[in-house]
Amino acid sequence: MPAVDKLLLEEALQDSPQTRSLLSVFEEDAGTLTEYTNQLLQAMQRVYGAQNEMCLATQQLSKQLLAYEKQHFALGKGDEEVISTLHYFSKVVDELNILHSELAKQLADTMVLPIIQFREKDLTEVSTLKDLFGLASNEHDVSMAKYSRLPKRKENEKLKAEVAKEVANARRKQHLSSLQYYCALNALQYRKRVAMMEPMLGYTRGQINFFKKGAEMFSKRMDRFLSSVSDMVQR
Amino acid sequence: MPAVDKLLLEEALQDSPQTRSLLSVFEEDAGTLTEYTNQLLQAMQRVYGAQNEMCLATQQLSKQLLAYEKQHFALGKGDEEVISTLHYFSKVVDELNILHSELAKQLADTMVLPIIQFREKDLTEVSTLKDLFGLASNEHDVSMAKYSRLPKRKENEKLKAEVAKEVANARRKQHLSSLQYYCALNALQYRKRVAMMEPMLGYTRGQINFFKKGAEMFSKRMDRFLSSVSDMVQR
Repeated sequence: MPAVDKLLLEEALQDSPQTRSLLSVFEEDAGTLTEYTNQLLQAMQRVYGAQNEMCLATQQLSKQLLAYEKQHFALGKGDEEVISTLHYFSKVVDELNILHSELAKQLADTMVLPIIQFREKDLTEVSTLKDLFGLASNEHDVSMAKYSRLPKRKENEKLKAEVAKEVANARRKQHLSSLQYYCALNALQYRKRVAMMEPMLGYTRGQINFFKKGAEMFSKRMDRFLSSVSDMVQR
Repeated sequence: MPAVDKLLLEEALQDSPQTRSLLSVFEEDAGTLTEYTNQLLQAMQRVYGAQNEMCLATQQLSKQLLAYEKQHFALGKGDEEVISTLHYFSKVVDELNILHSELAKQLADTMVLPIIQFREKDLTEVSTLKDLFGLASNEHDVSMAKYSRLPKRKENEKLKAEVAKEVANARRKQHLSSLQYYCALNALQYRKRVAMMEPMLGYTRGQINFFKKGAEMFSKRMDRFLSSVSDMVQR
């Protein structure tokens, strides 16, 4: 593991084998990070998906409890008690559904979104700049080869000067794209840590909020209701 | 809606049109109940499924957080902080996973199981006894028809006696199966109310337990950890 934490921009122009070797280390790191980020995103989207499904499931359950009343049972004697109890349970499920929906929204905004943005912005930027740097390097190599193949005769001075200008242009372009690429790779090292921790901060805060509100929701009032239903069931 | 709440067993032998008409009301009620129970079970299984998926999703997330350490990043400088933070988050997710698993088990045992048992035991019993009662009634009708088609001549006395015995047997069998069928239909009216309320009692108690334990889990200690991570992210 090299004892460096950034690519030096002043090395970009010289483009030495040492700098290229260090660059490849940063590129390998970015590759590993991209792969890991995709897996982490997948795991987080699964959690979000489960939370979302819980919202839909509690919605369906609440509706189904209310639907008891609309069944028009041929024998409805004594059903008033069942209907009012299921209505109450449906309200409980509705209140829970609000908490579940709030949690799902929080997970989307503070867990899934930051890591998607990290992938779409930071990782994609590195990958794009890598391609541009590759293209500029190729262009530079091509113009260098052209220059070295020029015949050494005097009458070619004008052509030589033209190709030399082309080489200089290509080098400038490569230099510029390497500066941008180095900057993005350095920034990635900096962003990486935050990008890994921020979504879990969102996840945990969402859970804390969810449990706090849930615990408040189930007050003593509900204890009385539940023991009266429990008595009914045991009768 | 008839002002009765049970089929009288003493009416079963006479099997009058009035009794048959009342029986059809009970049968209609049982049919509606079967349909509603199936829909309620489906909604409850969806909630259980979502809870189960949440267990699997949090398990995967916890593993993925631990996997950061094993990525062998080419540039690992300063990663110790990320690794230890993700370890801590992984423990939080593990603890949550325990609560999610406990809730999933409670939903399976106290919500889904009682309603499955109601369907498999009570509703299926009524449906089976209905079929048996139908068969016995047919048999009785067939032997009655056979008796009425007998020629009225004296020399048939022996045959007549035999068929009369057959009719008596068929009537006894039909009477017995109607008694069982009436009993099951009466019992269903009694069980119905409990069967509708019991699973929701299990659901609600499971949620209360879940929120109580969750709120306890996120103690002051975690507040400190989260604000230190939050500081790191903002730095």
